[in-house]
Amino acid sequence: MDKFSTNKYFSSLDKYFRAANYLSAAQLYLKDNPLLFSPLKKDDVKEKIVGHWGTCPGQNFIYAHLSRAINKYNQKMLYISGPGHGGNFFISNAFLEGTYSEVYKEYSENLEGIKNLCKNFSFPGGVSSHVAPSVPGSVHEGGELGYSLAHGFGTVFDNPDLITAVVVGDGEAETGPIATAWQSNKFLNPASDGAVLPILHLNGFKIANPTVFARMPKNDLVKLFEGLSYSPIFVKGSSPKVMHKKMAKAVDCSIEKIHLIQKNAKAGVKQTIKWPIIILKTPKGWTAPKEVDGKQIEGSFRSHQVPIKMDKKSHFELLEKWLRSYHPEQLFESDGKIKQEIKNFAPKGEMRLSATPLANAGLLLKKLNLPKLNNFEVKFSGHGTAKASDMTSLGDYIAEVYKLNDKNKNFRLFSPDETNSNRLQSVFKNENRQFELPIKAGDENLSKNGRVMDSYLSEHMCEGWLEGYLLSGRHGAFASYEAFVRVVDSMIIQHSKWLKSCEDISWRKPISSLNL
Amino acid sequence: MDKFSTNKYFSSLDKYFRAANYLSAAQLYLKDNPLLFSPLKKDDVKEKIVGHWGTCPGQNFIYAHLSRAINKYNQKMLYISGPGHGGNFFISNAFLEGTYSEVYKEYSENLEGIKNLCKNFSFPGGVSSHVAPSVPGSVHEGGELGYSLAHGFGTVFDNPDLITAVVVGDGEAETGPIATAWQSNKFLNPASDGAVLPILHLNGFKIANPTVFARMPKNDLVKLFEGLSYSPIFVKGSSPKVMHKKMAKAVDCSIEKIHLIQKNAKAGVKQTIKWPIIILKTPKGWTAPKEVDGKQIEGSFRSHQVPIKMDKKSHFELLEKWLRSYHPEQLFESDGKIKQEIKNFAPKGEMRLSATPLANAGLLLKKLNLPKLNNFEVKFSGHGTAKASDMTSLGDYIAEVYKLNDKNKNFRLFSPDETNSNRLQSVFKNENRQFELPIKAGDENLSKNGRVMDSYLSEHMCEGWLEGYLLSGRHGAFASYEAFVRVVDSMIIQHSKWLKSCEDISWRKPISSLNL
Repeated sequence: MDKFSTNKYFSSLDKYFRAANYLSAAQLYLKDNPLLFSPLKKDDVKEKIVGHWGTCPGQNFIYAHLSRAINKYNQKMLYISGPGHGGNFFISNAFLEGTYSEVYKEYSENLEGIKNLCKNFSFPGGVSSHVAPSVPGSVHEGGELGYSLAHGFGTVFDNPDLITAVVVGDGEAETGPIATAWQSNKFLNPASDGAVLPILHLNGFKIANPTVFARMPKNDLVKLFEGLSYSPIFVKGSSPKVMHKKMAKAVDCSIEKIHLIQKNAKAGVKQTIKWPIIILKTPKGWTAPKEVDGKQIEGSFRSHQVPIKMDKKSHFELLEKWLRSYHPEQLFESDGKIKQEIKNFAPKGEMRLSATPLANAGLLLKKLNLPKLNNFEVKFSGHGTAKASDMTSLGDYIAEVYKLNDKNKNFRLFSPDETNSNRLQSVFKNENRQFELPIKAGDENLSKNGRVMDSYLSEHMCEGWLEGYLLSGRHGAFASYEAFVRVVDSMIIQHSKWLKSCEDISWRKPISSLNL
Repeated sequence: MDKFSTNKYFSSLDKYFRAANYLSAAQLYLKDNPLLFSPLKKDDVKEKIVGHWGTCPGQNFIYAHLSRAINKYNQKMLYISGPGHGGNFFISNAFLEGTYSEVYKEYSENLEGIKNLCKNFSFPGGVSSHVAPSVPGSVHEGGELGYSLAHGFGTVFDNPDLITAVVVGDGEAETGPIATAWQSNKFLNPASDGAVLPILHLNGFKIANPTVFARMPKNDLVKLFEGLSYSPIFVKGSSPKVMHKKMAKAVDCSIEKIHLIQKNAKAGVKQTIKWPIIILKTPKGWTAPKEVDGKQIEGSFRSHQVPIKMDKKSHFELLEKWLRSYHPEQLFESDGKIKQEIKNFAPKGEMRLSATPLANAGLLLKKLNLPKLNNFEVKFSGHGTAKASDMTSLGDYIAEVYKLNDKNKNFRLFSPDETNSNRLQSVFKNENRQFELPIKAGDENLSKNGRVMDSYLSEHMCEGWLEGYLLSGRHGAFASYEAFVRVVDSMIIQHSKWLKSCEDISWRKPISSLNL
């Protein structure tokens, strides 16, 4: 047995998981006494509790298991959080990995730092309750759901060493943009692109309703994802101890499957590709109290935001009992330092999900080589003597951009089957369209190795891919019919919001522009 | 053998099909000599040919087969055309059914009328090339793709006698809104709602690319749709004679399956519901020339718009040969009247897909009974003496609207899981949420018979359902978090464009407002 699958290792992993859960809950509730080194007092608890608990424990669980895989396989990974809310989960992990303290002095690894961490979360003038640009490791704006999966695929194009884990919540899974983004696997070259590991997180409920994916018969789920050319691996349960072993096996199996697909592709071995997907079923608000006032909390939509409202004395007692169930005294030293065993578990340096430069990709940006504009001048000797069009010249220009950056492979054009109708077809002089399904006689400019993303008719997907490509430090442009660009205006606003917020964050380096 | 499955009947159906194809092609190319009663001259052909052929023959085929089913089962049906373009196909059918002549004097059933039909299509000042409000039988704006399926489900809620056939093109199938709309079957009550018969039309190509759905392995398609709780029926081929028998069988099987599901549901028989879907694979531009100048046309993306460009003498000859291959002389009398056999085939009166009042649903609109606003007045005797919120009062109001219109069942509230977070939850005093998947202990306000559409987290789907509900003559409202309404602003613009165009069409009666 490898050292990453021993009981001892799982015990460290579980401590990490508990610490992340503890900090996620503490951020929600506490403004003082952050590690409960004394009995909980009324004044320790925030007056108004605003934030989301439901998704946190499941994502803490996933985060811990991806960290284990990073350690085991020395695998470069990126974590994309689809659920959007529950920013406290990501902050907790960034703190446990030391990244949060590295970028923000006020959150040092001591009692004062942890107090600030708790107090400022979802607090006026403090830290946002969704996964925001201020959180190291985050790559896109939380809130409006549906773009995580297309973003994930965008990050791995031309990044053959990268596996991006995309956590899709079962609420988000109901959106149109996600529903179509599963098809992205038809546009992924296993030899020259990286891979996405989707983790569909079925916690069963959204705000006030059960989710469709959690209530569908399991056999339907299997067929659906097999039909989409994935190979689903189910992990279901609520006992952390049992779940750690199941999840570790599922993640190992996924990573090894990805490596095998990529190895075969590089060796030119013919294969039918079914990319792995993990379907993880855990109770919503996992590890929160089972019931409050006779109503189910853990495993119910009632844990979506604040599991226990602070309106009764008995609820204070319940909160204290809940927080102490994680045993903070086993996780932190008396001076607020994180126990060495937990620190040892976390990956190191840039391998940490919260510290990967891919999530602050301005650091990775290589300048785009641009041709001289003069070369595309339309020469004419008088009115009516030349026939030319601006879009055709732009096509020639983009073709040249592909050529000049062929070595760096850091530019792509994205379009929902509109490259020809936008008269940009001369781009195909230098680059084909990428298409991994069978290519037939009569098809034009299609290739498994193409890098023009023009063969899928979804503005959401093409724009989402482009955003992911830019967010991971590359360059690109999106071409569409002007009347249909509006389909994605809400996405573009959300991306712009992200860029705007990033400007105010000193450690974030600018990424390339979004060109429409 | 029933009379709808005899060779004689299929022969009439085929004549209808050929007439529709002929008129679709003639509209694209001709401005004179519309039935080719004399040899084709250069002056008979339009100078600039603009429009779409690719989708027309497949949709003519479907239209003819749905008409057969209407005749056979006396089944009330509505046709929703997803592909958007190819308006000439719908005009051809409306003309063959007599509806076009009934609403427009200039398109009478004679040579002059057919000449106008051809000349005005996609011509300056003439008729739009997409399926527009001016076409009787059309229900929504063509162009921007993705909303047909949600619209279709919207039309059948509370319409138990209706089957809406939704033709989803394989281009449109790639959009996010369609990808999620397949899940609408989880919100359809087989006893009190009608049914949607989706027809996924795989003609293989979009504008310049093959489609993903046409290139996926068949087994993946089967699994995908079975996973989505459909029972797929495949119809594939290119010989019209053979295809008529296959398609008739598939449509019969689908309609009988729908009737059985509905009958069982009304009788309270426990059943696992798999709604039928027809997956129809025909060559793009079916029945057009196989090749032009050595390049494949039929069965290729090159037939998407204009299959033969009129830039060479040989192309004129090819065009004439193509048009004559439908044998217009067998389909029309010398005075331009449609042959009686074809007229006999078409359904009659309001059963015609082009004449159903459901596609001009202002005719069906029943006034909404509204409660007195005064009843929801917040009474207070001074500053700070009452605690109330506008949204809570609105929830009370909507609850009352449900109650007052319970008999007509013509009002629904649509929301992507935001009814509670928008504080409208008092609506649940009088009506539950509709949810056809298993309901569990702890769920609140969910019922298979509910009529609040709040349990699916997709703005596209909820807004699409509402538009379909309104377009079929009912009333409703959409509630969402204001920042996320933008997700569907492009849809709302398209719906508004439809409403605006309808105002100028004398025979279209106003439908109810879209309330956000």
